[in-house]
Amino acid sequence: MSEIRKDPASPTWVIIATERGKRPWDFQTKRAPTVSENRCDLCQEMRLGPAESETWPGELDEQGRWLTRVLINKYPALSPEATLEQFSFSDLYHELSGVGGAEVIVESPNHQDDLAHISSHQMEAVVRTYAGRYMDWHADSRIAYLLVFKNHGVEAGASLTHPHSQAIATPLIPSWITQELEEALDYHEREGECVYCRIIETEKQSDPNRIVLENGSMICLVPFAARFPAEMKILPKKHMSEFEDMDAGEVVDLAEIMTAMGKKLSKLLADPPFNYLIHVSPLKTPGLDYYHWHIEVIPRVAIPAGFEWGTGIYINSLAPEEAARGLRQAEL
Amino acid sequence: MSEIRKDPASPTWVIIATERGKRPWDFQTKRAPTVSENRCDLCQEMRLGPAESETWPGELDEQGRWLTRVLINKYPALSPEATLEQFSFSDLYHELSGVGGAEVIVESPNHQDDLAHISSHQMEAVVRTYAGRYMDWHADSRIAYLLVFKNHGVEAGASLTHPHSQAIATPLIPSWITQELEEALDYHEREGECVYCRIIETEKQSDPNRIVLENGSMICLVPFAARFPAEMKILPKKHMSEFEDMDAGEVVDLAEIMTAMGKKLSKLLADPPFNYLIHVSPLKTPGLDYYHWHIEVIPRVAIPAGFEWGTGIYINSLAPEEAARGLRQAEL
Repeated sequence: MSEIRKDPASPTWVIIATERGKRPWDFQTKRAPTVSENRCDLCQEMRLGPAESETWPGELDEQGRWLTRVLINKYPALSPEATLEQFSFSDLYHELSGVGGAEVIVESPNHQDDLAHISSHQMEAVVRTYAGRYMDWHADSRIAYLLVFKNHGVEAGASLTHPHSQAIATPLIPSWITQELEEALDYHEREGECVYCRIIETEKQSDPNRIVLENGSMICLVPFAARFPAEMKILPKKHMSEFEDMDAGEVVDLAEIMTAMGKKLSKLLADPPFNYLIHVSPLKTPGLDYYHWHIEVIPRVAIPAGFEWGTGIYINSLAPEEAARGLRQAEL
Repeated sequence: MSEIRKDPASPTWVIIATERGKRPWDFQTKRAPTVSENRCDLCQEMRLGPAESETWPGELDEQGRWLTRVLINKYPALSPEATLEQFSFSDLYHELSGVGGAEVIVESPNHQDDLAHISSHQMEAVVRTYAGRYMDWHADSRIAYLLVFKNHGVEAGASLTHPHSQAIATPLIPSWITQELEEALDYHEREGECVYCRIIETEKQSDPNRIVLENGSMICLVPFAARFPAEMKILPKKHMSEFEDMDAGEVVDLAEIMTAMGKKLSKLLADPPFNYLIHVSPLKTPGLDYYHWHIEVIPRVAIPAGFEWGTGIYINSLAPEEAARGLRQAEL
């Protein structure tokens, strides 16, 4: 069973999950190589019947075949089997039991459907699957936050080649989210509006602006203070703090903008490793007027080094305006 | 000239330093290969006379030959040439001019003197050079913080092979330091003592404990909530918030514990890439009773992925107690 620890001298929480490492000193072997279709476990899974461990039926096509599936992670960092307990050591150190959940979301039956190749239609099923994860975990009283995210490429931490995302449910609100919520609340108290709504408005009126893509209800932009080369944010243009509040048309628009973004990113930076992660309001505080859900896209083309780890200040060698221009011009 | 930006929706600051990237889309070329002694620019620099750009004389041996040198970074993220200015765009975005400093500290004339091989005596010169950097930058009224750090290995962000560290002076206190200061101040207000002093005391009395090495005035331990496999902290046992407050004996002890730590780390994880970074109090607030300087050592053997970037929660697959045992047992 994993443990969740906090050092009293540091603001971050850490999940100690030793079951993931087979041999304690053997870290290099965790850099999994690319796996071809005929040796892929997830291709196999997509042909099988529902497993006992299935937490959600997944999305089906009209013939009842799987479009997406949700599987329990074989090496879960957190588990719903645990009961929520708190421990103290020497009155100094605090620890929570490793309660939570870790799921693998298989994005397609097709091994080749990475973000640069997946159809917008298939991506709609992925978006609906994400929304389903939020709805399911809302019901678990022990869970405070759900992070849905994607690792693409070995250098971005992916250990599976088949197109997949992950969902990790945590019994606490992550510090990064707490900080974003505080910044957003500060702004709302000071200016009387949502800072994300204001950013969207400002970018639409700015020249040069940092907008990459826009459709009826969604916008994709490079943040003014992008931490990484070609970092992007995707946001709904309408104020919304929860992912599952999207209507059917917004799901279509999001799938469209995500696949277009994926193609442009792959074109501009030659299929780079990347992560994307969905930031939403905490599960038990829906309908926030000061927070706005968004997707952060982080290409992993520069290596954060000692300065970034030591300060939390990022050095970005690509101007956000230049990144936005390059991404706009990249052909689909 | 670089710019320092903050997005109103995010707590982090970003330095946009486009002069470091030669061609905007060409990121792979920044992963510099290992350079041999006969092609090394820094080996060459150590044989030359003082440069015009020399900011500090460096440490000399009894024959007046260089032991260490301090050079201006050729691709500085921040520069002392700039004047401190603040800009606003659309009343939403804020920017500072890229005032600061970026120095390369050459740790030895010998190309082979990485942390696993450097002598404790040579390391004393490195420690004195670090202390000198703090004293120099204290005098610059525009500078709020100095981070001294080391990147070892390409995967840890090092672009030079010759043993070197870096110092980056910033006109603002980094968010990570602000957060550590807040945690430490909270603890001090609640418990009436320095949290780092208390951690040292607790570890010395705990079984199992997480201590790796200890000598007269210094201690090296694996934090209770280590974020990374074999992460370590080195601290002075006596309360001290500034690095340059060490006396001559403490400098000897620090050099000794750092070289022993470097040998153990190299032995246990087969010369892993790593970063270390020195956390001290902000330059203009010396003598804090609640903050305690320390060195964080971060082996780069696991890849932070979407979950870590999205939450600020780290998943560590090596239990801190196991890491401490392995490091203690690793032969020197």
